Amino acid sequence: MANRHTQTCAVARFLNVFGDAWTLLIIREAMYGATKFSEFQRNTGIAKNLLSDRLALLVDEGLLEEVDVGTRGSRIEYTLTKKGQSLLPVYVSIVQWSNKHLWGSGNEPVHLVDRKHGHRLKQMTPKSSDGKTLGWGDVLAKPGPGSSQDARERLLAAEHANG
Amino acid sequence: MANRHTQTCAVARFLNVFGDAWTLLIIREAMYGATKFSEFQRNTGIAKNLLSDRLALLVDEGLLEEVDVGTRGSRIEYTLTKKGQSLLPVYVSIVQWSNKHLWGSGNEPVHLVDRKHGHRLKQMTPKSSDGKTLGWGDVLAKPGPGSSQDARERLLAAEHANG
Repeated sequence: MANRHTQTCAVARFLNVFGDAWTLLIIREAMYGATKFSEFQRNTGIAKNLLSDRLALLVDEGLLEEVDVGTRGSRIEYTLTKKGQSLLPVYVSIVQWSNKHLWGSGNEPVHLVDRKHGHRLKQMTPKSSDGKTLGWGDVLAKPGPGSSQDARERLLAAEHANG
Repeated sequence: MANRHTQTCAVARFLNVFGDAWTLLIIREAMYGATKFSEFQRNTGIAKNLLSDRLALLVDEGLLEEVDVGTRGSRIEYTLTKKGQSLLPVYVSIVQWSNKHLWGSGNEPVHLVDRKHGHRLKQMTPKSSDGKTLGWGDVLAKPGPGSSQDARERLLAAEHANG
């Protein structure tokens, strides 16, 4: 990406990897089993130079790994690493939100089901440590150990303003 | 956004709104209580023309609403609608993933806690309809009612290949 965010913020750093129109689609394809450059290209419609860029970024970030499956000469395929697979909760929450709030009931392009029984997944919701469902207004962002002084002050001010 | 995805895909449509380096940061700011143009601008570092663009998009999509708080003349503030607030699970899953996999334990810029007790939230995970935690390999994308013929064929082929 041309400009990288330098804020100490979980969302900002996520956007340094995924803050474009394509990278999450490449992850989607990898989740659906695509491994070849040509598959990613065809199934997303991304330009080849952008795809090369994004695949290299995802390999750099340890989300995809290159596997040489060539028998005569080199032929590279891309598979999700454990770290890449760990994106599952992000992927599921995005699909569920988009289905509900952008496509709407009866127009969902995909349904996510558990492979074993074929039933649709539960709607993912934030929960407290003792398992209570938390809605808007129940969740607070507190400065973490890696917080900058600036972010720390802003978060504490926001807490005070909303609390 | 210059180019909009036309695929019938939940991720693609999400990216038509959020597929850039800034829009999720604006949502983050709104969640932290920012309402003024100048607050969004200062706290994200986004250029003013881009911010105008993105705020207009978020208003168009029904995620933010404009409130005129002017006493003499017009002064617009932006607040999250119910639909905007419904992004909470997406926001939480992104923060949790970024904390764990990009920043790492001990370097988290923020911790999300429940406002009432101050304890950190549970890690969000996909669950089956009967409440079992589902990992990578347990979740399958099936064509939904709004699926295109093309997507339908690809999803069924992927299911066959992985199953």
